[in-house]
Amino acid sequence: MTRWTMAPDRIPSAWFNVVPHLPTPPQPPLHPGTREPVGPADLAPLFPMELIGQEVSTEPWIDVPGEVLDILRLWRPTPLVRAVRLEKALGTPARIYFKDESGSPSGSHKTNTAVPQAFYNRAEGIGRLTTETGAGQWGTALAFACAQFDLDLKVYMVRASYEQKPYRRVAIQTWGGEVVPSPVDDPTHPGSLGAAISDAVRDCAGRAGSHYALGSVLNHVLLHQTVIGLEAREQLELAGERLPDVVIAPCGGGSNLGGIAFPFVPDAGVRLLAVEPSSCPTLTQGRFDYDFGDTAGLTPLLPMYTLGHDFVPPSIHAGGLRYHGDSPLVSALVRDGRMEAVAYPQGKVFEASVQFARTEGKIPAPECGHAIRAAIDEALAAKETGEEKVILFNYCGHGFLDLSAYDDYLNDRLPDEQG
Amino acid sequence: MTRWTMAPDRIPSAWFNVVPHLPTPPQPPLHPGTREPVGPADLAPLFPMELIGQEVSTEPWIDVPGEVLDILRLWRPTPLVRAVRLEKALGTPARIYFKDESGSPSGSHKTNTAVPQAFYNRAEGIGRLTTETGAGQWGTALAFACAQFDLDLKVYMVRASYEQKPYRRVAIQTWGGEVVPSPVDDPTHPGSLGAAISDAVRDCAGRAGSHYALGSVLNHVLLHQTVIGLEAREQLELAGERLPDVVIAPCGGGSNLGGIAFPFVPDAGVRLLAVEPSSCPTLTQGRFDYDFGDTAGLTPLLPMYTLGHDFVPPSIHAGGLRYHGDSPLVSALVRDGRMEAVAYPQGKVFEASVQFARTEGKIPAPECGHAIRAAIDEALAAKETGEEKVILFNYCGHGFLDLSAYDDYLNDRLPDEQG
Repeated sequence: MTRWTMAPDRIPSAWFNVVPHLPTPPQPPLHPGTREPVGPADLAPLFPMELIGQEVSTEPWIDVPGEVLDILRLWRPTPLVRAVRLEKALGTPARIYFKDESGSPSGSHKTNTAVPQAFYNRAEGIGRLTTETGAGQWGTALAFACAQFDLDLKVYMVRASYEQKPYRRVAIQTWGGEVVPSPVDDPTHPGSLGAAISDAVRDCAGRAGSHYALGSVLNHVLLHQTVIGLEAREQLELAGERLPDVVIAPCGGGSNLGGIAFPFVPDAGVRLLAVEPSSCPTLTQGRFDYDFGDTAGLTPLLPMYTLGHDFVPPSIHAGGLRYHGDSPLVSALVRDGRMEAVAYPQGKVFEASVQFARTEGKIPAPECGHAIRAAIDEALAAKETGEEKVILFNYCGHGFLDLSAYDDYLNDRLPDEQG
Repeated sequence: MTRWTMAPDRIPSAWFNVVPHLPTPPQPPLHPGTREPVGPADLAPLFPMELIGQEVSTEPWIDVPGEVLDILRLWRPTPLVRAVRLEKALGTPARIYFKDESGSPSGSHKTNTAVPQAFYNRAEGIGRLTTETGAGQWGTALAFACAQFDLDLKVYMVRASYEQKPYRRVAIQTWGGEVVPSPVDDPTHPGSLGAAISDAVRDCAGRAGSHYALGSVLNHVLLHQTVIGLEAREQLELAGERLPDVVIAPCGGGSNLGGIAFPFVPDAGVRLLAVEPSSCPTLTQGRFDYDFGDTAGLTPLLPMYTLGHDFVPPSIHAGGLRYHGDSPLVSALVRDGRMEAVAYPQGKVFEASVQFARTEGKIPAPECGHAIRAAIDEALAAKETGEEKVILFNYCGHGFLDLSAYDDYLNDRLPDEQG
């Protein structure tokens, strides 16, 4: 067999909290004005109390509410697939598995946290959310989730994406969300994720009944994504494997990686590998420090690897990986040596993505291509050593809305040096 | 439960042939020159002998080759989903199920026949295929399949789609296929499916080692699609249903409809419903007659409902339904009263598609929206009568590559009168 599903009643009913398993206790976020640790009251204008509680929880497991499970069931459990055709093309003794998150309504893993975030906000009487989105993976996921809970949504979309890649904008509107280009105060600026966060936070901060939602970086977001790794663990067992030798995922803000990798943190023998673009090399080239999550300095200071909150990465196709900072949990695991990180230029990423499309059939999102690149390189290394390594990576989203990037790659319009 | 998968070993290992179950025996295709019934030798320049055999077979079941099954396993069995959120929004006592074919590599049901067609051609030593594609659903599916069997592929794409909807063109190229706009001899003509068929047939007819592949209409194509209905039948049983009251699918050339509906033809109580665009109303307004499959009159004459082989339908978004003719098998079943047909203008189709997206989460292809429209209307009729009707429809493909159509609809740029 090469594809493992599970009975729908095997969707994990609790999220895995990695905090109790960290080598060192997490450092608190700091207030942007006072530089003192932030308390729940500081975050209450932005987030519902349940999510604030999850943000600082040290409980090992946190229950998934039934209403959330009812919606996750629309596409979960997702399949685990063994990439036998890719293995054969590589001539590797490694066994390559991928967890296929591309079948969600919006086509990526982002829906796993969009649904609980919309749920907790609705449960606390919030009627409207604001958020930012880069290429649109997060904006589409939240628009889908808001439609399920009858929440209004305003999305600040990085202007370059808004104008050049209109499809995800239309998807957001199809689900009933409102989209505007960011930065709102400078129509000539191409925008950045940090600036769009500033716009979205400013919009809701002063408004009763409005909250803000973030698609990555924060602890509660990564928590919600752990359904990926929990399912993968069980499915690997169905596939006759004990544990993977290495778990791989792209890393922008960290939710993709945290989702598949955190449930394996307690297993000391399992390598955990973050893959980032060499044009935005937060984990491989950044410094570990307190920094703002946004450009304008409105958010709390987070302890993380950062390239500086005013860093504007070049406009690569993997828009979801263009973020100056990183999840504090992922950052701490990298700093403490429990996670590794590697960076690739985008030409190498698309080369791997096309090889994957022609063997396994599926066309990956450019973000996802980063994990495929690293998985292929791990498999080729195993070929050198003759090792029967078990490789697991997160197939975090499809590339149907990123085909213009493939057009550039196939027609040599993708400068490799761009990163 | 609301979503039923099956174990991977439950993929049907034989296709269901509807021919023995037809109320009247099928009429043969006629040679375009002599108007005599065509024999295998007439078709041999275009198709491998195994497919020609399937085209005229009266065997009730035909084995699926193992190598084909190995590839179908990449995405099959596909899930059967109960649309409980849509039911609730409609306030209907009906139970609405859809068979979700959108998870295939190219995002539609077309891969179900692309894979066996590529396989049989490769098995008979063919190294190159030609085909036509409208919006690109078929071209992408065949490009994926050809990549699996190392076959060269040249796709003649209707020029209007080639220029205005480049994404599926890029997908074909990503899988390694070549694409050119059609008609090749008139760069100012927007093109049509019939003209693209002429181009593709002309290309391979005179060339050794080249064959032609068609994505719908022919008996062997509909045969390959019956995995959809066979799986749905078994999954409905898992869902605790006996048989559906009505089976619904969009109908352009008929492969979508044949795929889900043919396995229910022997069940006299099950209504079978074809849904077509009112701008290309082949079954509802056409005449039953022998006609050419293409514009230039190169193909055999087929006994079918037709609007005339020189009919050029208006440029609606559901490009896959813009065909002047129809499957002879579907046509015969409609003529003999075993199948019904209904037509909708595209404004009503997109209204249903947006309601589906906001309730069930998934954004459907415009072709697929036709089935959703009819399913909703059946469910609303059941609300009037209080009937607990069981409705099954084919969710034949996602709309990620059709979002510009939603943009038009949401911004009132979609003239309803266009059909």
